[in-house]
Amino acid sequence: MKTYSHGGDITTFKEKTGCKEVLDLSSNINFIKPKIKKDFNNLSIFSYPNYDKLYKALSKKFKVKKSQIELFNGATSAIYSFFSRVKSKKVVIYSPAYLEYKRASKLFKKEVVLIDRFKNLYEDIPKNSLVIFVNPSTPDGRYYKLKKLFKLWKKKKATVLVDESFLEFCKNCKSAVSFLKSYKKLYILKSLTKFYSSAGVRVGIIISNKKNIKKLKKYEPLWKISEFDKNYILEALKDKSFIKRTFKENKKAKKRLLKSLESLSFVKKIYPSSANFVLVKLKDLTAKEFQKRVQKRCIMIRDCSNFDFLDDSFVRIAVKKGFDFRSLLLL
Amino acid sequence: MKTYSHGGDITTFKEKTGCKEVLDLSSNINFIKPKIKKDFNNLSIFSYPNYDKLYKALSKKFKVKKSQIELFNGATSAIYSFFSRVKSKKVVIYSPAYLEYKRASKLFKKEVVLIDRFKNLYEDIPKNSLVIFVNPSTPDGRYYKLKKLFKLWKKKKATVLVDESFLEFCKNCKSAVSFLKSYKKLYILKSLTKFYSSAGVRVGIIISNKKNIKKLKKYEPLWKISEFDKNYILEALKDKSFIKRTFKENKKAKKRLLKSLESLSFVKKIYPSSANFVLVKLKDLTAKEFQKRVQKRCIMIRDCSNFDFLDDSFVRIAVKKGFDFRSLLLL
Repeated sequence: MKTYSHGGDITTFKEKTGCKEVLDLSSNINFIKPKIKKDFNNLSIFSYPNYDKLYKALSKKFKVKKSQIELFNGATSAIYSFFSRVKSKKVVIYSPAYLEYKRASKLFKKEVVLIDRFKNLYEDIPKNSLVIFVNPSTPDGRYYKLKKLFKLWKKKKATVLVDESFLEFCKNCKSAVSFLKSYKKLYILKSLTKFYSSAGVRVGIIISNKKNIKKLKKYEPLWKISEFDKNYILEALKDKSFIKRTFKENKKAKKRLLKSLESLSFVKKIYPSSANFVLVKLKDLTAKEFQKRVQKRCIMIRDCSNFDFLDDSFVRIAVKKGFDFRSLLLL
Repeated sequence: MKTYSHGGDITTFKEKTGCKEVLDLSSNINFIKPKIKKDFNNLSIFSYPNYDKLYKALSKKFKVKKSQIELFNGATSAIYSFFSRVKSKKVVIYSPAYLEYKRASKLFKKEVVLIDRFKNLYEDIPKNSLVIFVNPSTPDGRYYKLKKLFKLWKKKKATVLVDESFLEFCKNCKSAVSFLKSYKKLYILKSLTKFYSSAGVRVGIIISNKKNIKKLKKYEPLWKISEFDKNYILEALKDKSFIKRTFKENKKAKKRLLKSLESLSFVKKIYPSSANFVLVKLKDLTAKEFQKRVQKRCIMIRDCSNFDFLDDSFVRIAVKKGFDFRSLLLL
């Protein structure tokens, strides 16, 4: 396994570079922020939190019952809890994918089977595996229609986890929630921190049928989500214009980013993306060299060489307001 | 096993009673609040949290190295994570004790051995067990000197978890941290939400030696604590007069509470407590009947009948500012 590393580590970046202000294009957090009307300085945090309202709001948002949701301290916490409970011995990861899946598989002593989704999406899988499918995928942001894959997975009696942490960024993408009725072994993971612009708020959820959620819940503590985080998400969900603003502003910023990338001589290919980031294949320049160039301007981008099936010619760049590579004269 | 229930469930209490304002004497949260100077409405929550400062502050506070601490989303989260990793098949719980220990044992398929610490503290234990000792204990708040017990535990090669979630309330109680050097299989659990008056803030820690913590950390996600909660605890630790205020005010309020309890005809025994709550044995009145009487005044107390070795004549009452049973005329 390649060295484990991730985007968004601003603290380390600042220490390394001496930069005071950083433009982080390495992590995929929504640059549009929801309006938070509640006064967090006067929030009552004395008592144990009660999550009823949060479950209710999430149930409404994702069109499932409250009993079909379990809360976790972010998507990564959800992955670890899920892996510690799932019985499948083999994990099929449609790759490249979020690296925590490989890490969790290794930790919980599961055999990893990688499928190169760029080359052979419909490759056969071992029976009774746990299938991991990130949709839209990362690091490229491609959205897949899953109907045909579900047929294959069903035939192989797979337990399926569809990670939809970036689905909210895509206007016309459909959630796998629609498969829940016909597929008993389906789990859907959603990070709420990417779309709601708050990686510091640790809330993620797993959606499944009532029976599966009851089983997961059994191993979870009564209280885990912060009262602050609970209220942040509740407030964010109340902001009616937030989704519209996000679509509009991200579309504009993405268009500008893509245009500027197209103009760069060392960009070989830009992958089509339904999310708030793009995967770029470089030519005559490595990811590390590109990183070094933008680092001088206190900009972070994601070197994708530690993703499976990618090499040192790939970088991932997040969509951020008003950012344009053409303005960086040194390129 | 008796039905599982806990204190502090104000939401359910309000629904049941119609009370709008509740005096919660059923959960043991410090009624003195630390001064929080940071503006939580302008806290930066966009990026992934970095916990370096929190580890540093906790390391200073508890006089251990940063590498000897692992953060969890509250003490209950810590218990579940710890139980999912510990290898001992038998769990010795010095009882009565916090009920989550029995629940976690059952969940993770461990055999429970209960020791009645009121009757036979130095009872023999099975070899290689996991020992759970809450100090000061709950629901009675008694502080135990552990030297003699550690000798027994060492002889039996026990893995030991000392839960010190209420230790900070006791001025002259010593932490089991002093045993860490001589006892390799020792873990110390601390809830930060009880003392720092914030059950809505989900932070708890496990302290052990570097090697043990490294092993625990391996199975933990990179991010789990909320940026809000991190900052709350950092601010609380900065408040220099908070500990002094807590001791002074709790002492005063406890004295008043004890005096009022002594005057009640149906109080048979008050257990000596080093914490911010007291265990009371009743006569000619059951815990449920006592609960009903105070419920009329929108007061919650903890019925202790679901604790091991206690029956329906025991209640736990938290120390709260200015509260006095003598003012309740209906008693």
